[in-house]
Amino acid sequence: MSQSLFGAPRPFEESGLIAETRYWTFAEPPNELPLVAGGRIGPVTVAYQTYGTLNEDGTNAVLVCHSLTGNMHAAGRMADSDTIGWWDPLIGPGRAFDTDRYFVVCANVLGGCGGTTGPASINPKTGKPYGSAFPHITMRDVVNVHAALLQHLGVTELVAVSGPSMGGSQSWEMAAAHPDLVRHCIPVAAAPVGSASLIGWNYVARRAIFSDPDWQGGDYYASGRVPADGLSLAREIHTMTYYSPSYWQNGFGNAPGESADNPRLPEKYAVEEFLDEEGRKLVARFDANSYLHALRSIETMDIGRPFGSLQAAFRAWKSRLLVIGVASDLLFPPWSLIEAVETAKAEGVDARYAEIDSPDGHDACLLEIDRVISLIREFLAG
Amino acid sequence: MSQSLFGAPRPFEESGLIAETRYWTFAEPPNELPLVAGGRIGPVTVAYQTYGTLNEDGTNAVLVCHSLTGNMHAAGRMADSDTIGWWDPLIGPGRAFDTDRYFVVCANVLGGCGGTTGPASINPKTGKPYGSAFPHITMRDVVNVHAALLQHLGVTELVAVSGPSMGGSQSWEMAAAHPDLVRHCIPVAAAPVGSASLIGWNYVARRAIFSDPDWQGGDYYASGRVPADGLSLAREIHTMTYYSPSYWQNGFGNAPGESADNPRLPEKYAVEEFLDEEGRKLVARFDANSYLHALRSIETMDIGRPFGSLQAAFRAWKSRLLVIGVASDLLFPPWSLIEAVETAKAEGVDARYAEIDSPDGHDACLLEIDRVISLIREFLAG
Repeated sequence: MSQSLFGAPRPFEESGLIAETRYWTFAEPPNELPLVAGGRIGPVTVAYQTYGTLNEDGTNAVLVCHSLTGNMHAAGRMADSDTIGWWDPLIGPGRAFDTDRYFVVCANVLGGCGGTTGPASINPKTGKPYGSAFPHITMRDVVNVHAALLQHLGVTELVAVSGPSMGGSQSWEMAAAHPDLVRHCIPVAAAPVGSASLIGWNYVARRAIFSDPDWQGGDYYASGRVPADGLSLAREIHTMTYYSPSYWQNGFGNAPGESADNPRLPEKYAVEEFLDEEGRKLVARFDANSYLHALRSIETMDIGRPFGSLQAAFRAWKSRLLVIGVASDLLFPPWSLIEAVETAKAEGVDARYAEIDSPDGHDACLLEIDRVISLIREFLAG
Repeated sequence: MSQSLFGAPRPFEESGLIAETRYWTFAEPPNELPLVAGGRIGPVTVAYQTYGTLNEDGTNAVLVCHSLTGNMHAAGRMADSDTIGWWDPLIGPGRAFDTDRYFVVCANVLGGCGGTTGPASINPKTGKPYGSAFPHITMRDVVNVHAALLQHLGVTELVAVSGPSMGGSQSWEMAAAHPDLVRHCIPVAAAPVGSASLIGWNYVARRAIFSDPDWQGGDYYASGRVPADGLSLAREIHTMTYYSPSYWQNGFGNAPGESADNPRLPEKYAVEEFLDEEGRKLVARFDANSYLHALRSIETMDIGRPFGSLQAAFRAWKSRLLVIGVASDLLFPPWSLIEAVETAKAEGVDARYAEIDSPDGHDACLLEIDRVISLIREFLAG
């Protein structure tokens, strides 16, 4: 999910929080973390940030979860950079996740490249980066790592778990996998089960990376070459799915690009240059193998799998559930979220669906931040 | 545009026509065809089929235009194969394009690989296939070739020009470029101006081909290698855009593929195998360079460009216009077609919009063939 360059959310006053990344390592051999798809991994280092103070019985924590290419820097300003956290408008004194009341935690996902153990980390068995040896991970594995971190921090209960897009996927999975831990689950623009079209989109993006000769089967770290072409194309494909046709049209129409030079006919369009730039920016900050593992964890999601059915997952479910969707979302269309909420309600879950009534597509879950804030405030107060 | 494997239109009785491909060559040097983007091309061979009989004054012709990877075999059965024409349900005795009354023509597009001159044809200047030397072509060039063919055949007036998807693009362009030739223009799921998202989708598909080392800058014909990987990925990306999320979900859900072999978790999904198969099938029958040229001709379309504005194009317009859209079309959303029709009406064009009320996406323009037939019948009778 990209922050839009052509329709950014309105500037918010900064939360004023100071962000700092910490690291915690666990699952040291021989006590490696078992993984859903088979195999084990360890040690696992988790990069995380916290905002606010944990109360004595560890019951005032909120876990916020990042999107596909996000990281643990959810709020505030890093001491050593100008970067503001990706959900800063929601987190801080008096904000929806009020740091005067709550202890807010955000951690980089397993398989990521923001400091948590991922494919670029050193494989203790070889002394070299994992690369292709990094195991297949699922969203269940991702949230199991976060649950271990929360326990380590002394958290006994989550007031809420929430996040947009892949952060919403993590929210669903955390509430399903750790029902006793979670009081409110608030997935934003995310579904509890991978859909056919989500799998399809991820598949074509994945193929773009696989097709890049510089990907080298995933073992590119020592080669001095990275699959820049493949990762940028994957990013561009996904970027196309983040916005609706009308949003693209309003942003660019068929305006020629700056590099268009045939007076008879545009041979480079502005929208193409925008996509190029989105691809370039991601390549500069993200690892292709981490991208692949994150995609796979989203599309293989099925919170019902360990229970035998989605219904059975909801029978074990304990938290109040607010699913926030976007009217025009191509990746997580409203009908798919409404269906999940209806299934949950039929099994007795206190569940509701709320919609961001935007024509702009998936990324309205970031763009329409005011709406997300008011929905979350209302739900937590209710 | 692909014929769906998971929800094919109902079988129609065959038209009973016998299809035969003919070839006509024109624009012999030094009288090459001038091209919109600059340069000239010649000779140009056009592969075409006709059904029915032209009347004496040449006024009973219908031009049907094929989609992105289609060809001139629009109706009937070839004498030497079992293939049925792609719009057979619309063409034949008593059908919407009634061959007892009309002389129906369909021609492969310039730049194609179905027999009309394209990048794989011999460049008379070098004696080798054009490859990267094939000039940039536009939809205007495509219809200019068809107009020359019609003149050669003795056609003085088209009762109608119609086609789905890229065939609709050709319909728009023909009516705009040759207003005196056309009496009814019926674009199906196509717009008169390339939109930002259409350009974007085509761009990522194009990049997939460009990234394949076997593409070799377009000069692959003599190498014994073709960009199969790039073309199949491009096809898979486009196939994702041809159907709606609900259509994908109903067809596949998150069912494992036949080659999935991890009992803990599907590592290959049925939808992925379907996409693979779509890619493979196209590679077996289509040329990557032709795919690239066809994409560019669709997205660079702007019937207003030669007139100075879309309004001016409609002021020169003479045919009755029926634009058929699909409610759930991601590539040519209803609002974009309605906007075009409103612009046409404001300039005095007898224009109307009709919608195929399907939740299945762009390819409903092929799947909902009954609806298309009844809309065309009604329009031609009116």
